[in-house]
Amino acid sequence: MSNGPLAGIMVVDLSRVLAGPFCTMQLVDLGARVIKVEQPQGGDDARQIGPFVAGKSAYFSSLNRGKQSIALDLKAEGDREIFEKLLRRADVLVENFRAGAMERLGFGWEDLHRRFPHLIYAAVSGFGHTGPYASRPAYDIVVQGMGGIMSLTGYPEGTPARVGTSIGDIAAGLFATVGIVSALVERGHSGTGAKVDVAMLDSQVAILENAIARYSATGDVPGPLGTRHPSITPFAAFAAKDAHVIIAAGNDTLFNTLCECLERPDLAGDPRFATNDLRTQNEAALRHELESVLAAQTVSVWLERFERAGIPCAPINDVRQVLSDPQVRARNMLVRVEDPQAGTLEMAGNPIKLSSHPDPDTRGPIPDLDGDRAALLREFVDAD
Amino acid sequence: MSNGPLAGIMVVDLSRVLAGPFCTMQLVDLGARVIKVEQPQGGDDARQIGPFVAGKSAYFSSLNRGKQSIALDLKAEGDREIFEKLLRRADVLVENFRAGAMERLGFGWEDLHRRFPHLIYAAVSGFGHTGPYASRPAYDIVVQGMGGIMSLTGYPEGTPARVGTSIGDIAAGLFATVGIVSALVERGHSGTGAKVDVAMLDSQVAILENAIARYSATGDVPGPLGTRHPSITPFAAFAAKDAHVIIAAGNDTLFNTLCECLERPDLAGDPRFATNDLRTQNEAALRHELESVLAAQTVSVWLERFERAGIPCAPINDVRQVLSDPQVRARNMLVRVEDPQAGTLEMAGNPIKLSSHPDPDTRGPIPDLDGDRAALLREFVDAD
Repeated sequence: MSNGPLAGIMVVDLSRVLAGPFCTMQLVDLGARVIKVEQPQGGDDARQIGPFVAGKSAYFSSLNRGKQSIALDLKAEGDREIFEKLLRRADVLVENFRAGAMERLGFGWEDLHRRFPHLIYAAVSGFGHTGPYASRPAYDIVVQGMGGIMSLTGYPEGTPARVGTSIGDIAAGLFATVGIVSALVERGHSGTGAKVDVAMLDSQVAILENAIARYSATGDVPGPLGTRHPSITPFAAFAAKDAHVIIAAGNDTLFNTLCECLERPDLAGDPRFATNDLRTQNEAALRHELESVLAAQTVSVWLERFERAGIPCAPINDVRQVLSDPQVRARNMLVRVEDPQAGTLEMAGNPIKLSSHPDPDTRGPIPDLDGDRAALLREFVDAD
Repeated sequence: MSNGPLAGIMVVDLSRVLAGPFCTMQLVDLGARVIKVEQPQGGDDARQIGPFVAGKSAYFSSLNRGKQSIALDLKAEGDREIFEKLLRRADVLVENFRAGAMERLGFGWEDLHRRFPHLIYAAVSGFGHTGPYASRPAYDIVVQGMGGIMSLTGYPEGTPARVGTSIGDIAAGLFATVGIVSALVERGHSGTGAKVDVAMLDSQVAILENAIARYSATGDVPGPLGTRHPSITPFAAFAAKDAHVIIAAGNDTLFNTLCECLERPDLAGDPRFATNDLRTQNEAALRHELESVLAAQTVSVWLERFERAGIPCAPINDVRQVLSDPQVRARNMLVRVEDPQAGTLEMAGNPIKLSSHPDPDTRGPIPDLDGDRAALLREFVDAD
């Protein structure tokens, strides 16, 4: 169960739904032992989020495979004692409550650090533990909106679009993981834990990429561009006969090769398209020319031709196509969990491939709420 | 310069453009020393990507602040010796060439590990170092298309949209950072380095989130949904008088509060909208009702009302609004670099806030190509 660079690390996980559990699932994949401490009434809210297979949430399963579960009421004296016995042996505590919640429970950073100086405490929240919005609630769609990514996603003439996956939660979960593991590195020499405070909103700002440089340098407010790149052309999805094909011909040589592939050498010689800057200025005209040729054949015909010519290209795969892609399969990016009730469940694998550890194609079981209580009490309470 | 949990860690960075440099910029923010080894002709390609301020790429600057630079031709004997002297003292080597490039240079993992057993080697590539597509080129738009996120982003009736930031590169950079820091934790006891092989395509699969569970559990292929959530309603952007307002009323209580705020108690009692499931089934009808009320006032009026009522809500901020947001400012998510040529440059800060280290609002200088050659040769070659 614990094979990976973090083998031997114990994580107590109070987090629910997505951002925190996504972080602690990475810690599981890296070999850590993660003990979910769930509220007794229903546990992690994600247990109630569909789709369900034989009554079990496939969504919850995909985020919590390989973790253990114990239900504890952190307001009840006996359960608090159990929780503290877990903390005494834990390396990391993760939670994604609203700011202030841990202090109200008596488990704020000051108290934790005084009592468990070796403990690393990661708080993942909507807005972080400081600043004027610290106590406000947040959800993925809230920080996608406030953090700017929605203003960059979609089409200029249309309504802004949400990134179709919960990038507000996921980015925060990833930064939290980086913070936790870095704090483990430091604890290796200092012996002391640290608080890691990661906000979903901050994490959105951190992934705005060239949009910040563009605005800061020019004062122009970047907007959505459909599928195209702000400064490289052609570098977008184009309509072919049956669907869209992505072409990433980022320099003059590749553009010339593309024009040959399309049997349109005239485009390579057209002064409107002579340089990348000109192609970007005349993007609409170039798109019109390219799509007039691309319309004659299907995406698969074009992909074959472009690949042979060395032009970076791609289909727009739907989820079914992604999961059956030979490369995705070869890289073990779809793993299985055998569940006694739900049978075989498939979920995303671990994208961090390490030479020092195997990358198994089956993963640990889905924890039932409070399902590991007896074993955990034996290990952490009775043995005490 | 080196304040953070990774202080004392030295990184040799061959990476260019985005995925690798984004990873090593996080390492800088965590206190590591990063030495960029650039090709003598022009260096990192991002130096040529606009916008420019006083001839300096603001884009390159935002990804490479606080790193050092030396230009080395890894095919020339003398430069290879310098490179090897750097590796002898390095903890981490990062590159984002295509698979096979390092082997052709004589610096493949087998050779590196034999000669520098303590070295952690992170390769960030389009498709990873194994599998049928290993040698293919990839760019952000290619893996956004192949990895499924584009099929989930945009509107059902429209053309798929690219996520408006290079999430194909950024996700890979983040997973690479997690892998590197985890390998550092393990090296703390084992003394041995590891290879970290991160693919942009794998990283896209890893962030598909509920789309995989939905498809695996039901066989239904998820598509784009505009701004709305697949199973929670209302949880989307809605048109108000002047722009869109995000409302995240995820349960019956919040929905009832929303109906009161909108002075439409009839909607709370409408059998079509009695439960979250029914609201999701009747999303179009509910949207029509809500927008007919929302149209009467501006976003700012609605936000004030919703906030007072405790309904999670947000504007869709553009980049200018994000960067002047009081919370973003209070969290130090916009930092400055003073550059001798370009003056003050603003860029995203570090979302990982650690109790153990300060979070300065100014960051290290922008490296000129080969600008640290003399100092690096003195430190690593002459002293040898």
